[in-house]
Amino acid sequence: MQRKQTIQVNIWGVQMGWNNPVVVQSMTNTPTSDIEATTMQIKELAQSGSELVRITVNDNKAAIAVPKIVKNLKNLWIHIPVVWDFHYNWHILLEKYPEMAEALAKYRVNPGNVGKWEKKDDNFKKIIDCAIKYDKPVRIWVNWGSLDDDLLQYNMDQNNKLSEPKSSKEVFIDSMVESALLSAEKAIEFGLPKEKIILSVKMSDIQDMVKSYELLSAQTDISLHLWLTEAGSNTQWITSSSIALGLLLQQWIGDTIRVSITPEPWAPRSLEVEVCKYILQTMWIRSFRPLITSCPWCGRTSSDRFQVLSKRINDEINDKYSIWREKYKNFDKTNIAVMWCIVNGPWEAKHADIWIFFPWDGENPKIPVYIKWELYKNLEWERVYEEFMDILEGYLGGGI
Amino acid sequence: MQRKQTIQVNIWGVQMGWNNPVVVQSMTNTPTSDIEATTMQIKELAQSGSELVRITVNDNKAAIAVPKIVKNLKNLWIHIPVVWDFHYNWHILLEKYPEMAEALAKYRVNPGNVGKWEKKDDNFKKIIDCAIKYDKPVRIWVNWGSLDDDLLQYNMDQNNKLSEPKSSKEVFIDSMVESALLSAEKAIEFGLPKEKIILSVKMSDIQDMVKSYELLSAQTDISLHLWLTEAGSNTQWITSSSIALGLLLQQWIGDTIRVSITPEPWAPRSLEVEVCKYILQTMWIRSFRPLITSCPWCGRTSSDRFQVLSKRINDEINDKYSIWREKYKNFDKTNIAVMWCIVNGPWEAKHADIWIFFPWDGENPKIPVYIKWELYKNLEWERVYEEFMDILEGYLGGGI
Repeated sequence: MQRKQTIQVNIWGVQMGWNNPVVVQSMTNTPTSDIEATTMQIKELAQSGSELVRITVNDNKAAIAVPKIVKNLKNLWIHIPVVWDFHYNWHILLEKYPEMAEALAKYRVNPGNVGKWEKKDDNFKKIIDCAIKYDKPVRIWVNWGSLDDDLLQYNMDQNNKLSEPKSSKEVFIDSMVESALLSAEKAIEFGLPKEKIILSVKMSDIQDMVKSYELLSAQTDISLHLWLTEAGSNTQWITSSSIALGLLLQQWIGDTIRVSITPEPWAPRSLEVEVCKYILQTMWIRSFRPLITSCPWCGRTSSDRFQVLSKRINDEINDKYSIWREKYKNFDKTNIAVMWCIVNGPWEAKHADIWIFFPWDGENPKIPVYIKWELYKNLEWERVYEEFMDILEGYLGGGI
Repeated sequence: MQRKQTIQVNIWGVQMGWNNPVVVQSMTNTPTSDIEATTMQIKELAQSGSELVRITVNDNKAAIAVPKIVKNLKNLWIHIPVVWDFHYNWHILLEKYPEMAEALAKYRVNPGNVGKWEKKDDNFKKIIDCAIKYDKPVRIWVNWGSLDDDLLQYNMDQNNKLSEPKSSKEVFIDSMVESALLSAEKAIEFGLPKEKIILSVKMSDIQDMVKSYELLSAQTDISLHLWLTEAGSNTQWITSSSIALGLLLQQWIGDTIRVSITPEPWAPRSLEVEVCKYILQTMWIRSFRPLITSCPWCGRTSSDRFQVLSKRINDEINDKYSIWREKYKNFDKTNIAVMWCIVNGPWEAKHADIWIFFPWDGENPKIPVYIKWELYKNLEWERVYEEFMDILEGYLGGGI
């Protein structure tokens, strides 16, 4: 299986499509009119690895804030394309705030959401014209909640005339895909080149979403944006988004990904970026950061130190991600193991570059740290965390 | 794609294999010698939906505890097969504690972990003899950390003689699969029927694991147990386990699943069961509980009520899972939506049986609850949670 040769799109310097890495993106949840909060959240998302960020521009205040946010980011030396998520009032904002239209790096358009009846095409053209004027790429997304009724009804009627009609679910999925492809054709007809288009369908069911993208990918070489919408609560959304994106990425479908979340109150916004990174890295599609292999917790566990250490290393890597990935050459390819189990532990750490093995309980146990299967040092209980982190940084820096 | 026609295995009344649901299993992390704690944890796991539970039997005290734990569960009216996870000292425990061997519902054997050199086969036979004597099924699992060195070396040597040798990774995976199949053949030779065997390979890399099971499934009709080992910290393990199991289940490979976790301190043990259930349900393989669709959190969000309500409904369903699934006929097939977004909200709740729509902020807003697209009632801010839960239970009970 080879990566689908999709058309490359340049979003303010971020290259997407065939031959480029699968791009990680995210969305803010601050009110866009709060310039300071939105700037800081975009900074957090960018530093955790988001390569594109989408913001809602839902009212006048938000539209006025956009150029200021983009300028703030520039002053902070953060280069990240900011994408326009607009809604019913888009045409008003577009006329009143050309600076906003200029400052944004990409627009996102749902053709089912730009007006009714005969106005639909006119409005869609207005947005495409604007994208052409400001030389911006456009993501066209079809929402299962606002799929073109006329198209769906027509397809259902045609299907009913068949001697062996498809299920209404199949007709629905076919219509989603057709709507996306027709909208792309229209945009091209209005003068937007293929190199400025990204396509997506918005669905909340894994099987429907996977089927839709499989069909889309078979019928177009336009770059595809993958995500599963309304994936549910914390555990459910990580589970279902991972499966949906995993099933498509395994077929090399998808040029950019996002995961969508109803977060728990304590979750940092960057959690959605973290999940994207884990999906791509554990599938061996991209590498971002050291992965930590650690023993599961079972009835043989006599201490929780390996869990605590495992979590602390992970937190430290998250905190220092943006600095360490620049500073240390092999940062993204280093494998760490935190093992405890005498039955499996040492043998299952074979692949790790640096690993620590917690012994069974006892008085003053020595805790060996290995580098590439050579014993490097025995640590003491008391300072095990600090010492291990020192050794890890020494190893990353090439000094060990 | 059809479900692989694997051989059916009966584990103390739990049927596994083709034509049966994919079985959810889990493992305890209490010391097995602590009879009370282990009984209570098995109860928690069973009530959250685990259909099989594995416990470590690592010393004399644990072996003595086993029949007592099984008896306790019986007294609590909890029917769940308890599986033996044994290690180096298995033969000593087996001879000393026949009541333990009798009380357990299934044994788990790693043929790479039962002794060295010529003793290997003898020891493996002893365990199989014991399984035959007590009429127990056996899961044979090959661990990538303890794969038979002789077999691997032989295969590497043969591969090097080829004009176009495979990569050492491919030879390794082939050897894992071969080791599992050879062990199954040996067990059959020793007199254990195929209907008493389950196979698995233990790997911590998604691509290696998926490839191994694809090869296994192509070469045997013995039932397969899927899991990704040492999947890492909380977010990483949910992500990578979901992808790995998703990729295989989508091909209808897998008769039972488990996810393995280095948990965060606050995580309940039943989290691993919850993830298994979400994997199977969001892929439409089995249904367990109402799924909650909820708006993601974005910059248009003006209140966190939908998140709080979504989480509270979810927690309530988890708490009452074992009671409600018995009590309410359509419990597992009910879809709930908690929406907020005026842009997408109502349209994306189309599929829900019962849903609530939070309006934009304002004074004394009404919060409508819909049942199958009919307005059922407008709720007030103050008692929105209690009232929604009452309506939900009324709906589940058929009274609404």
